[in-house]
Parts: sequence; C-alpha cells; structure tokens
Amino acid sequence: MFKYRLLTPGPTPVPEDTLLELARPVPHHRTPEARQILAEVVSGLQYVFQTRNDVLPLTCSGTGAMEAALVHAAPRGAKAICLVAGKFGERWHKLWQAFGVESVAVTVPPGEVVTPEQLEQALRAHPDAVAVCAVHSETSTGVKHDLAALGALVARTEAVFIVDAVSSAGALELRMDDWHIDFLATGSQKALMLPPGLAFVAVSEKGWRAVNRHQPPVFYFDLRKAREKIRENDTPFTPAHTLLRALRKSLQRIRAEGIENIWQRHRRIAQACRAAVQALGLELFARVPAEGLTAVKVPAQVDGQELLRRLEKEYGVKLAGGQDQLKGKIFRIAHMGYIDFFDVLAAIAAIELVLRDMGFPVTLGAGLAAAQKSYASA
Amino acid sequence: MFKYRLLTPGPTPVPEDTLLELARPVPHHRTPEARQILAEVVSGLQYVFQTRNDVLPLTCSGTGAMEAALVHAAPRGAKAICLVAGKFGERWHKLWQAFGVESVAVTVPPGEVVTPEQLEQALRAHPDAVAVCAVHSETSTGVKHDLAALGALVARTEAVFIVDAVSSAGALELRMDDWHIDFLATGSQKALMLPPGLAFVAVSEKGWRAVNRHQPPVFYFDLRKAREKIRENDTPFTPAHTLLRALRKSLQRIRAEGIENIWQRHRRIAQACRAAVQALGLELFARVPAEGLTAVKVPAQVDGQELLRRLEKEYGVKLAGGQDQLKGKIFRIAHMGYIDFFDVLAAIAAIELVLRDMGFPVTLGAGLAAAQKSYASA
Repeated sequence: MFKYRLLTPGPTPVPEDTLLELARPVPHHRTPEARQILAEVVSGLQYVFQTRNDVLPLTCSGTGAMEAALVHAAPRGAKAICLVAGKFGERWHKLWQAFGVESVAVTVPPGEVVTPEQLEQALRAHPDAVAVCAVHSETSTGVKHDLAALGALVARTEAVFIVDAVSSAGALELRMDDWHIDFLATGSQKALMLPPGLAFVAVSEKGWRAVNRHQPPVFYFDLRKAREKIRENDTPFTPAHTLLRALRKSLQRIRAEGIENIWQRHRRIAQACRAAVQALGLELFARVPAEGLTAVKVPAQVDGQELLRRLEKEYGVKLAGGQDQLKGKIFRIAHMGYIDFFDVLAAIAAIELVLRDMGFPVTLGAGLAAAQKSYASA
Repeated sequence: MFKYRLLTPGPTPVPEDTLLELARPVPHHRTPEARQILAEVVSGLQYVFQTRNDVLPLTCSGTGAMEAALVHAAPRGAKAICLVAGKFGERWHKLWQAFGVESVAVTVPPGEVVTPEQLEQALRAHPDAVAVCAVHSETSTGVKHDLAALGALVARTEAVFIVDAVSSAGALELRMDDWHIDFLATGSQKALMLPPGLAFVAVSEKGWRAVNRHQPPVFYFDLRKAREKIRENDTPFTPAHTLLRALRKSLQRIRAEGIENIWQRHRRIAQACRAAVQALGLELFARVPAEGLTAVKVPAQVDGQELLRRLEKEYGVKLAGGQDQLKGKIFRIAHMGYIDFFDVLAAIAAIELVLRDMGFPVTLGAGLAAAQKSYASA
C-alpha cells in the first residue's frame, strides 16, 4: 500500500466532500442559484479577510489577482515601494516594472523580513510613492511580515497598502480593515482548500479612490467592472463557477470552525512542526516564520533534492524544495488548509527515516516526540 | 422526477467520467506527471485546432485568452480591424480600444455575417491595419464566419489574423494552419466539454513575428514567457491543473472519435435542429448558422423570457435567451460538445409543449419528426 500525502505550500489537499462537489453536474452560470453562490462566497471571503470591503472573484491564479491589484493601485509613471523578502516579493517588483511603474525594492536576504523601520525609512526617502506592496506569508522562504505594523505606517501616508495574502488568507491572522490594507489578493489553492483556478481581490475605500485617479490599462482584470457586477451577484466574464460552488463548501467549513480558531490551529501546528525540526538537529530557515509552512535548512552533508525525492518515492510525502537560488538549500513543509497535525507527524516521521537512511544522525522519534509535546502543551 | 438538461452555448454539460476526474485528489503541479499531462493536452489541442503551432494554456476565461491574443498582436497606437457580428465581436473591438489600439469595426446587423468582400474593402481602406480580428462562431447570434475565405485575404497582407474560436473549437471545422490563422483563442467550457476556468491561445510564426515587433503590456498574460515554459511542459504561474488533467480526458475522447467525425456530427445535429425549428413554424435568426448552436426568433405573439422560464421550470430544459438588445427576441439551443441528438430532441419536445401551452399554434411532434427525418437522411 502506498498513500500519497501532499504537504506543499500550494496546491494543498482538497477535502473529500469538496472534491465530490467538483464532480457535480455543471449548471448554468447566470441563474438565481449561481447568484446566491456568489453572494455567499463573497460574504464568506469577507469573513476570512475580516473586511467589509468589496471582494471580487477573478478566474486566474494568484499572480493574476496581484496584477489586477497592482495595475489599479499605481498608474504608469508613478512610484511605488515593494517589500522584497523572496521570490514573490521579487515577482511583484517585476510586475510593476512591466507596467511602467517605478518600483523601489526594499530587499532583505532570503529568510529575513522587511521590518517596519525599513519601511518607515523607505517612505521617508520616497514621499512620492503612491503604493506599498508587501507579501504576508512569503511562501518561497517561509517568513511572515508584520502587516499590522507595516499597515499602520502606510495608513499615515497617501499611499495605498497592497498585500499578497495568497498563502496566508485562511491560515494566518489577517485583518484587512484593522490593518489598513487597501488591496488584498489571494488564490484558491492554499488555505481555502480548493484546486487552483480562482483568485480574489478585495479593495478598500482608499483603494478605490486610488483607482479612480487614473485609467488602469485593464479589460479582463477591470476591477471597477467587477465591482459593478458583484453588487448584482454577477461577474463580467464567465467565472470558474464550479470552483465557486466548491469554494462555498470550504467557506462553510471555515465559518463552522471560526476564523480565530483556524488561526490558532495553524499557530499550534506550526509550533509543533518547528519543535520537531529543531529536535532533529535541523535549522529553521525563516527568521520570523509564517504559520502556514516551515522552511528548513538542508544540512550541509545532505543532498536536498535527493531528500525530497526519497520522501516522495519511498513514503509518498510530497514536500516542496527551495526555488531558484534556494534550490537544494531548503525544504518546506506546508501545514495550511486541510493539512492537520497528524499529516505533519507523518511528514516528520518520513523525514526522520529518510535522513537516517542518508547517513544524517537522527534519534528516531525525537522529532515526533517534540511535536507531540509542543502540540499537547499549546 | 425532474431531470435537468443544459443546452446553453457555454457552459455545456461535462461527461460523467470527466466529472469524476475532477473529483480525484489534487496532486502537485510541478511533477513529471503534470508535465506529461501538459504535453498530452498541448498535442491534443494542436489536433483540435489542426495546427503545428505552439498552444499555450492560460488559467482564465475565453475573454482573458482573447485579451492575451489582442494585446500581443497590435501595439498601442496601431490600427486594427475588428469584424463585428454580435456581442463578442463588439467585446474584442472594445478590448482593443481599452489598450489604445485604433480598432476599425466592420459591423453587420445581428444575424448577419461579415463577408469576405467587406473585409477586402476594409483592408483596402486601411492598408496600415496590423491585425484583423474575427469571431468564428458568434455565440450571441449563432452565425458562423467563413474563416477560410477571410484568412486567405488577411494572409495576402502583413496583418495578422486573430480568431475567437471559443464556441467553435471542437465543434466546427477549424483549420488553423490551412486557414492562415495567426492567433487562435478558445475556452474550456464549450465543445471541449469542461467547466470554465481554462483558456488557450495558439500562435503562428507570423503571429510571433508581430509579437516580437513590440513590448506587449503584459505580465500574467505574457505569451512569450508561456511559450518558453510550455516548451519544457510547464507554465509560468500555477495553472488550474486539475482542469488540465480533466481536459486530457476530453481530448482522448475527441481523438477516439476523430475531429472530422466530430465536425460532421455537429453539422448533422445542427441540420436536424434547424429542420425541427422550421417545421414548428419558427424562424431561424442566423443567416449563416454555426453548427454549435441554433438561434431562433421568438414569434411576435410569444413572450421570449416566459418561454425560457417555462422550459426550465416545467421541463428542466435550460436554453439561452438573447443578450442585451436581443433579450426576449431570440432563444438559443446549443448542440455542441457533450450535447447529442437525443438531448436536442428533448429540447424540441419541450419547446413544442411550452409553445402550445402559451397559445402558439404547433402540431405536436412536427418538430420531432422533422429532426428525426433530417438526422436519418444525413
């Protein structure tokens, strides 16, 4: 018998009842039922984002949603600040450049976070910046930015605050309104427990004012048109409506558990995972770790890609490696969405076994015991 | 018992085994298996489009794919010609305008098609046009453009030929290479028998030369990046990969039947449907009808929206009405993808019954008999 366990930071496993929902016959997408689904989905996402703002569903990946946010937030020729702590921060920096926005990158080495002090300095140096873009959970390195502190700084200025919440919404504490977030983007395939294909942008009143100052170069990603339509529980173009129907199920699940309980659950599992990793003599990669995944340094004497290969091939445990310059140097254990504590234990057990087989000294069970103790004491 | 039958020109019904495919667990999207699926999907779509060109999968609706094609084909400030025979032609005209392209619309009244003569005239009047955009099957009115003739005209010029094949690919005869199509876009939710969420753009060598003449204002829809990646059986951003896996099933089904047989099947059902409608004393709306749907004029004494409402509520037959200015004036019976002859018979039977109930004089069975005779004689 061979059981496959997906513990990557997107895509993540989809609950079985949601999978069955995806197998239901395809209805039409302009019906009272479809409108009802859209209304429920929007209200559920407002709850997840802790916002009263409009939430706009888009049929695209998280990158598409971020593109929509960025091109609405800052016009060609404007200046913006981009907080870069990894691959995704870097992507948004490049995205702005592609659309003619002068993006000032505040870059920290992988594993570090951009601090509020660094942002304060950047805002002082660039008082003409009209937008600040931050990644909440930087999936490539596993770090978490302090959005509450960063948002408070941006709120004192005329600039809008744009947040990539792709691997954080539904996993990490996230309070769009309280934290002064003006554009929030996320995708379906992380803590929302769906396959990829849907993404969402929420926009604050301050955000809409920024949008209305220019003519964003958009058609498919026109958020104003999307807002007009969503207020009639509709979308401008054919949405991935069977995914929306399945999302309703995820959101019902989230409401039933309670978003604060979900954040707490992710904190608890993250702590247990970090305890396990350290008990095995491994080092955490993220200085300020996000609760949706744990990035771990590959020990010098271990081949990181071989480690991942063996975990998958021998034990069915699919983790993610490092990307680009971090390839072979870190591995990432996801624990967001439908990944629970026992799934993480399975991953820890497999890691112990494979590390031992690869000649790395481990005390079998040490990681498991540390996780268990941490989990029980939380 | 109440059985629901979806006969709208998108979304269309999804075969049961494809639905089950959608309920399978979510795998990771950067694996040898995922690459294999992408390779098969691209090759299957090349077969459907009858092309040797690159086919690029995008996670978006058909409108997103058309946006990708249009902004790559003509730079800001350039002039393009748009053949407008309905809502979708109109949409692409507006799309170009949104991106600063001077779009010259060649417009015909709803139900008519733009003729090769009209295009020839437009090309003569606008020798500086760098692109021509046509809708193969104009879903809003049910007409079909003669792409072979239009493409031959564009091929004589430096302009590129862009085709919206959203409701035609996999239903109507379509030969990208032979017909000199440079950009071809389609979506997943029509004759490809999938839910919405995926779209595709294929680009010819002439098309790539046009792309390379400028810097298209794109990031998420960057077709050059998509081409680079697809040649490694990969995508630049997280794709809707469970839909891609399901698409493989649709494409296997299409290969097994044979694309020319599929075109023939659609022709035969379309003919039968038109025969039925006319036998009931109703008038066809499209001068040159596409084989994927039949647009029918609502008789003067009948309330078109009430007709549709009754069909759905009383008989579970979901047809589409007219859009915008055609609302209440036409109804549309789709017969593309996984809609077969007997499904169309069910729709005809329901139409007969509802028309009679609404006081429109029909000979019960006349439509059915005409369809049956047409079908048998084909």
